[in-house]
Amino acid sequence: MIGLSSLIVIGDFLNSLFAPIMDAPLLEAVLIQIFIVFLLARIFAELFVRFGMLSQVGEIMAGIIIANLAIGSFTLASALGIGWHPTDPTVYHEIFEVLANLGVIFLLFTVGMETKFCDLKAVGKTSFTVATFGVILPFILGFGLIVAFDTFVTHDPNWLVHALFMAAAMVATCIGMTARVLNELGVMDTIESKIIVGAAVVDDILTMIVLAMVISIFAAQSSGDGIDLIGMGSSILVAVLFVAAIMLLCSHGIPKATELKRCRLTEKGMRCQERDWPWSIDPFPLAMVACLGLSALASIIGLASIIGAFLAGMLFAEFAQDRLESKFKGINALLVPLFFVYVGMRVQLTGFGDMILLTVMVIILAIIGKYVAGYLGVLWTDKSLGKEEANIVGIGMSPRGEVGITVAYMGLTAAAITQEMYTVVVFMSIVTALVAPPWMAKAFRRKYGDITKHT
Amino acid sequence: MIGLSSLIVIGDFLNSLFAPIMDAPLLEAVLIQIFIVFLLARIFAELFVRFGMLSQVGEIMAGIIIANLAIGSFTLASALGIGWHPTDPTVYHEIFEVLANLGVIFLLFTVGMETKFCDLKAVGKTSFTVATFGVILPFILGFGLIVAFDTFVTHDPNWLVHALFMAAAMVATCIGMTARVLNELGVMDTIESKIIVGAAVVDDILTMIVLAMVISIFAAQSSGDGIDLIGMGSSILVAVLFVAAIMLLCSHGIPKATELKRCRLTEKGMRCQERDWPWSIDPFPLAMVACLGLSALASIIGLASIIGAFLAGMLFAEFAQDRLESKFKGINALLVPLFFVYVGMRVQLTGFGDMILLTVMVIILAIIGKYVAGYLGVLWTDKSLGKEEANIVGIGMSPRGEVGITVAYMGLTAAAITQEMYTVVVFMSIVTALVAPPWMAKAFRRKYGDITKHT
Repeated sequence: MIGLSSLIVIGDFLNSLFAPIMDAPLLEAVLIQIFIVFLLARIFAELFVRFGMLSQVGEIMAGIIIANLAIGSFTLASALGIGWHPTDPTVYHEIFEVLANLGVIFLLFTVGMETKFCDLKAVGKTSFTVATFGVILPFILGFGLIVAFDTFVTHDPNWLVHALFMAAAMVATCIGMTARVLNELGVMDTIESKIIVGAAVVDDILTMIVLAMVISIFAAQSSGDGIDLIGMGSSILVAVLFVAAIMLLCSHGIPKATELKRCRLTEKGMRCQERDWPWSIDPFPLAMVACLGLSALASIIGLASIIGAFLAGMLFAEFAQDRLESKFKGINALLVPLFFVYVGMRVQLTGFGDMILLTVMVIILAIIGKYVAGYLGVLWTDKSLGKEEANIVGIGMSPRGEVGITVAYMGLTAAAITQEMYTVVVFMSIVTALVAPPWMAKAFRRKYGDITKHT
Repeated sequence: MIGLSSLIVIGDFLNSLFAPIMDAPLLEAVLIQIFIVFLLARIFAELFVRFGMLSQVGEIMAGIIIANLAIGSFTLASALGIGWHPTDPTVYHEIFEVLANLGVIFLLFTVGMETKFCDLKAVGKTSFTVATFGVILPFILGFGLIVAFDTFVTHDPNWLVHALFMAAAMVATCIGMTARVLNELGVMDTIESKIIVGAAVVDDILTMIVLAMVISIFAAQSSGDGIDLIGMGSSILVAVLFVAAIMLLCSHGIPKATELKRCRLTEKGMRCQERDWPWSIDPFPLAMVACLGLSALASIIGLASIIGAFLAGMLFAEFAQDRLESKFKGINALLVPLFFVYVGMRVQLTGFGDMILLTVMVIILAIIGKYVAGYLGVLWTDKSLGKEEANIVGIGMSPRGEVGITVAYMGLTAAAITQEMYTVVVFMSIVTALVAPPWMAKAFRRKYGDITKHT
């Protein structure tokens, strides 16, 4: 058995082995950092996918290992100069953090690009109800749980901010996840799937609005002495106006601007090119400019940059998607794994033991909140649907994903939630994302029989 | 007329306007920096393309303006915190530099991806001779010019290193540029085009070898006291072994590995899928790992990271290009403009007046070197071709581009060439890239008549 002292020796040896990286010229050090992180992220992603799990979960796991697997004083994160060293907290390089943050901006842009405003208009009353319930109920449950936790367990005076951010992190359904499972099951055309996908789209937008409001309250509260109602009100107003302005562009500005050129008289008669990019300029740099610009603007007016990125994505959702998607896939393939690794790196396993009960409760409430919201939303709105359909929709709404994690990450970097609470959200997202797919598959099969395309 | 004092007042006002950016949280500042730089780069690129010039030239021009257009003490580069402030040289942020450097790595990977080893085997004797002459002659001319300049004009003792890097920066023909012009003229199938394109491929590889050797000599010379022949020899050996190892992989390893699976017995009989990606794993992350890994490795063993990136690109050149290209286009569209802006930002117009004569001479020798090499290479190797063909090939080889600029940029960051010499190379690349296309078009039209697809 390896004793503690030999672990320290091995750790010191490993640290000395990696020392040249920290002393290398900046670009060389960054290249080595990104190379090793990217390689590990891909290996874990690939392994997780082979075992039927999400690649993101593998990437987060790589991050957890990079930052938490300690041999003596050695962790890979500190050796690479991208993390917090257990004994030397100054060991840390900000460039990796910036790259990870650029990653989440492009990730949210892509999520926004999947949120078409015209789909939104087509979303039925049922989806809308399911989504609204599915935001309100988990928010209330999460808020209540954290208020209780802070009041009775930790006696933390920051209960309001903690509870707001944690509740916001619990509201977002993972649309990418859900759509992939539905697609694999071959049930995309069923009524339940349409409700789920529609609700997930509404859900994303509602989450952004909730996040904007939470950030506004947080900013107003932390800047002034005590709770400044006027400041809070004006912050929320700015947030709402920002979101509303972009939504207006999506609903009226862009359709009008593109309509003008969309239907035009050519030699072959009137030609309508729906959702085609109407101008001669390449849409990709324009999308990039919008993404960077709105992210920066959102950040400047005190909102999260990801809200701007998401809204920028929505601006480009309805057209030119074919031309944009593959290119953004390239950028995302480079930067998004860095973000998920960074998400995992911020997870601190030390001292997590005390939080297991809270984690379990958050997971249970997260699932119950979405399930009940979906279930009741269906039964309440559409009388033609029964309990079986309501059950499927409830299950389908329960997985959380990158958006919830991102909200928690924003909370952590703004010091609005604690390190432990952040870790709780990451585990909640991972568990719901792992539990939901087989559960969904079972419910769909019970109703529709074995309709999977791939057995 | 605006006097000097009012310029100072305006400059101070502009500086105070931008001051919040420097004080903003890191990610917000970076977002604003990238947004403004990217926007300007795109506007200039778009304008230059509309006027029939290369987008890269527009991006470089944007960089020159960002760093050099001063109003009082205000320049955009210093206001954004990405450049050198005329009065406060500490104003500078390294994150933008890292992003630009990542850009050039992916750019060179893409150049490498266009350099297929199987094309290389198909390259005729003529192309090979044209390329070899076209590397040797400009190198000798450039070397001689800079030695003479340092000896007689500046009396700089660093003449050897200066001359080596400047000569290396003069050897690379711009294949992207050339191919685009040939394509637009619709003359891709002519014998001259085939010679030019083939030679440009060989040219890229030879340039990398020359660069590797130049860097080795520079490293050996600057580390020891005086010129250390043994150190220099071993550096060159390492460089040559590195390049040779990758080339061997390209020529034997990869064909063998892919051949194994390329031809296999399926239900429909023996199926050969040429250049198809043979494994089930996604080639894109693998290409990324190779690009980052070989760049880091090249950097660690003392070569330029771009050499590793170029060679990594060559590894992936022969297969899976369809699946890789569009994704790398996405990454490049984000990062490469940042590199070209950075290239322009490093150009210092102050004091450039003294270097105009040198610039003109470098341009003339750069064109003459390639022209004569191409001309003689054709006449010497292929007796069936005459002076007209030799003339066309000579012209076609003369434009320089990103590779030459990159070599000069490496030299500048390693302090192997002076600021002024760097500026000379950038202008040489711009001028040759602007002059060559109309000249080429004229020569092709004289021989083949007006065969342009678009008049």
